[in-house]
Amino acid sequence: MSVKIVVAGPRGNMGKEAVKMVSSTEGFQLVAVVDSRHEGMSLQEVEGFHGIDVPIYTDMQKCFEDKDVDVLIDLTAPAFGRKHMETAFANGVRPVVGTTGFTETDITELRAISEDKGLGAIIAPNFAIGAILMMKFSQMAAKYMPDVEIIERHHDRKLDAPSGTALKTAQLISEVREQKKQGNPNETEELQGARGGEFEGMRIHSVRLPGLVAHQEVIFGGVGQTLTIRHDSIDRTSFMPGVKLAVESVLKIDTLVYGLEHIIE
Amino acid sequence: MSVKIVVAGPRGNMGKEAVKMVSSTEGFQLVAVVDSRHEGMSLQEVEGFHGIDVPIYTDMQKCFEDKDVDVLIDLTAPAFGRKHMETAFANGVRPVVGTTGFTETDITELRAISEDKGLGAIIAPNFAIGAILMMKFSQMAAKYMPDVEIIERHHDRKLDAPSGTALKTAQLISEVREQKKQGNPNETEELQGARGGEFEGMRIHSVRLPGLVAHQEVIFGGVGQTLTIRHDSIDRTSFMPGVKLAVESVLKIDTLVYGLEHIIE
Amino acid sequence: MSVKIVVAGPRGNMGKEAVKMVSSTEGFQLVAVVDSRHEGMSLQEVEGFHGIDVPIYTDMQKCFEDKDVDVLIDLTAPAFGRKHMETAFANGVRPVVGTTGFTETDITELRAISEDKGLGAIIAPNFAIGAILMMKFSQMAAKYMPDVEIIERHHDRKLDAPSGTALKTAQLISEVREQKKQGNPNETEELQGARGGEFEGMRIHSVRLPGLVAHQEVIFGGVGQTLTIRHDSIDRTSFMPGVKLAVESVLKIDTLVYGLEHIIE
Amino acid sequence: MSVKIVVAGPRGNMGKEAVKMVSSTEGFQLVAVVDSRHEGMSLQEVEGFHGIDVPIYTDMQKCFEDKDVDVLIDLTAPAFGRKHMETAFANGVRPVVGTTGFTETDITELRAISEDKGLGAIIAPNFAIGAILMMKFSQMAAKYMPDVEIIERHHDRKLDAPSGTALKTAQLISEVREQKKQGNPNETEELQGARGGEFEGMRIHSVRLPGLVAHQEVIFGGVGQTLTIRHDSIDRTSFMPGVKLAVESVLKIDTLVYGLEHIIE
Repeated sequence: MSVKIVVAGPRGNMGKEAVKMVSSTEGFQLVAVVDSRHEGMSLQEVEGFHGIDVPIYTDMQKCFEDKDVDVLIDLTAPAFGRKHMETAFANGVRPVVGTTGFTETDITELRAISEDKGLGAIIAPNFAIGAILMMKFSQMAAKYMPDVEIIERHHDRKLDAPSGTALKTAQLISEVREQKKQGNPNETEELQGARGGEFEGMRIHSVRLPGLVAHQEVIFGGVGQTLTIRHDSIDRTSFMPGVKLAVESVLKIDTLVYGLEHIIE
Repeated sequence: MSVKIVVAGPRGNMGKEAVKMVSSTEGFQLVAVVDSRHEGMSLQEVEGFHGIDVPIYTDMQKCFEDKDVDVLIDLTAPAFGRKHMETAFANGVRPVVGTTGFTETDITELRAISEDKGLGAIIAPNFAIGAILMMKFSQMAAKYMPDVEIIERHHDRKLDAPSGTALKTAQLISEVREQKKQGNPNETEELQGARGGEFEGMRIHSVRLPGLVAHQEVIFGGVGQTLTIRHDSIDRTSFMPGVKLAVESVLKIDTLVYGLEHIIE
Repeated sequence: MSVKIVVAGPRGNMGKEAVKMVSSTEGFQLVAVVDSRHEGMSLQEVEGFHGIDVPIYTDMQKCFEDKDVDVLIDLTAPAFGRKHMETAFANGVRPVVGTTGFTETDITELRAISEDKGLGAIIAPNFAIGAILMMKFSQMAAKYMPDVEIIERHHDRKLDAPSGTALKTAQLISEVREQKKQGNPNETEELQGARGGEFEGMRIHSVRLPGLVAHQEVIFGGVGQTLTIRHDSIDRTSFMPGVKLAVESVLKIDTLVYGLEHIIE
Repeated sequence: MSVKIVVAGPRGNMGKEAVKMVSSTEGFQLVAVVDSRHEGMSLQEVEGFHGIDVPIYTDMQKCFEDKDVDVLIDLTAPAFGRKHMETAFANGVRPVVGTTGFTETDITELRAISEDKGLGAIIAPNFAIGAILMMKFSQMAAKYMPDVEIIERHHDRKLDAPSGTALKTAQLISEVREQKKQGNPNETEELQGARGGEFEGMRIHSVRLPGLVAHQEVIFGGVGQTLTIRHDSIDRTSFMPGVKLAVESVLKIDTLVYGLEHIIE
């Protein structure tokens, strides 16, 4: 009894990897893809999907009417996330969604539908299991070691600083730790910015260099000791174990979970 | 309402720190110490304990008869651990014990007494909170990222390799991870030992250099990513936050817990 | 006045990158490639070399007769390295060679030709500048901090341990450091191999995990301090800055240099 | 034939270590100390110097008249550095000075005296050999890998950011690297300061946490690779190998050298 899966957004970078992962995972069955073009073609006719013979739909509703589907993996774009989830719920399909851009209202309303229908749903802005574990452990550690700084490192073409993952980590930590301003109260910066960006008393530092990909370390300091939790990601395929975990988990829950960190025990 | 505490073994390295910690922690009250000498003297008469005016007992039973005690912190030696716990239980005192050398039979029998009396007890071979968190997180991560190696680093006077903490970590991981032999099945060592010591398919590497104190990193590898959990300890005082946590926790439990990792949530 | 360059082995992984690097570097001019097939075709007719219109030769001697060449970049295979260098010298061309497999006799004899002709030559088993710097700095540091261990980390498909780079680093260090056996003279291994592989008193540790590519750290310990030199390589293109440096350097020397570390000042 | 040494400032933290180091190093002989008090006493009468029977002078000139001295190790305070060096030169003594606060004029004038007398002299604001090597290697690497960021980590009582060592390292790098502004030209900071302090296009990040002592990593990025040079210092005794090296070196030079990095080859 395989899990019957539809992937939306198969030609994107993550979509491509998800198609491959579903196709090659025992217990998973790819039954169709939803794309913005190629209606009626087989996926194997599209470059890069050699040998994967499943139909392409441009209309998600029609796809769910034609096929018996357990889980939708949605890797399209923020503009479609909410609509795709509603379509899935309406057809008894459990959504696993990798897009961002949901408002709190979106999530509240989608969770209500999820629970009303008894259909689990997972929205995961980040599928890298290692990153999820890093964030979860960071939140746990902050209860016992409240002094913490974050160093994130990315390639030097990145536009924003700090990274979304660093901000998310700081947010998770601030939910549990006592409010505190770290460092010497009289400290001074000879070079402005040397002490990094401040987020509720914590400091975040963003390194940008060629040769880096996506890395983060969260450092907790206590008397006589430090604890460091570090994630290094060098490849987009690093997201697939997380997508796989989300598919397995969404079958067992009957509410909407936002963030893979709430799945991990 | 302070927690009334007795420290056994006040002249040892950890004992000395524990006396200071208890004396300076709000909500804790040091009521006496148990030592092998100086019966009847005040602790402040002993070198290194200036200003700490509590009586010294050489007989723990007598100490518990004289004083109203909530918690015993026992930092003596393996030979005394079991006996001291029994004396504590007999007097309605909850023991927090930092000595090693307990057999499984010891623990089973002491747990029976603990539960029978409804008196919580904690035996902790390691009080370094950062190290405990490292071990706990390592066990959690291994469920999702089963490929793992451990590198521990210590000063070059250390006799044994790997360290006890590395072996404990590997043991905790092996309790949850699927059995697997890592690395290329056909791998060869040009230098014998290069691939480290094998523990149930994992590898452990021990570095010994001057300038190091006590460090360990646990590295989990997955497709395109690694997760690293690292603990660096440079000072014996790093144990005191763990002793404090144990005292606070032992008041809330009614069984014997072995290992501080089972206290952390 | 550009440097006129021929690349031998253009379809290999490094060859492909070298063709791109030479084509896009100001001051460098790709005049031809030498390959085992496609005689007489233009390189742009071969897949993956779009827009690079230079002739393909299968006969290196003929290539050097037809074209005015300053430098040969040879990225073929060990079997051809010596012959290609001799052909280069005979035609007044300075060779930069990335193949391995040269014997000491080969090098002695090739150096004699190089000096006799006054034509510089560079044989470089490793073109990663970061790795070369790591090795050079390690050798320098060992004079002042003789206690050292090496940890190298590679993907888990790698067959040999330790890596060639780790052995080369240890060799370079042993040339300058006082002979010493490190660690506690009475140390014991509870797990055989925990202390790593021994190389003249130093220890080398090899980690193999998915998610790793090619990494090495060399750790020097002294009283109260450690110095760590670490190289992380995640991509074959990391070799091109080294190839470029070798081309620039080979024009300024009149002997054969083995190892890029002897070029760096 | 031992090197006859006077230590000035024996009761300071570094002075105390220097007295011990000189007393216990074969080939070195402590002949006297210069201090601001205890004139005429033996050092062994002062607490903490048990068994070290050398005379204490409060007048350096008188000390040099009474004793045959090769090298002065001056670990007093910036206010005395220049005067002590002049006194040493006037008495044919070679100074090794660990104080800071010298102006460029001071150095020029003292170097003139040093060369005129043919008496070597070393002023070293930092005696940690590992730190010196880190700075030297960083300067060397920047020629080949010009993209660089510095992360320095210190205990959370430190007042200034960045550390003096970080600024010195950046200064040394800027002397050799091409001028460049790193990172994406359009990058933005969501949290002000996240990208660290800017020094001639490089970025410096300062981490402050309990459990840290004094650490710095210098990270060079190139295509597909990074090179990291890291120094970890946990103890003041880490300066003594550098003091020892300076004493040995000052005997072999006949000019003033500022910075131990110019001694290391």
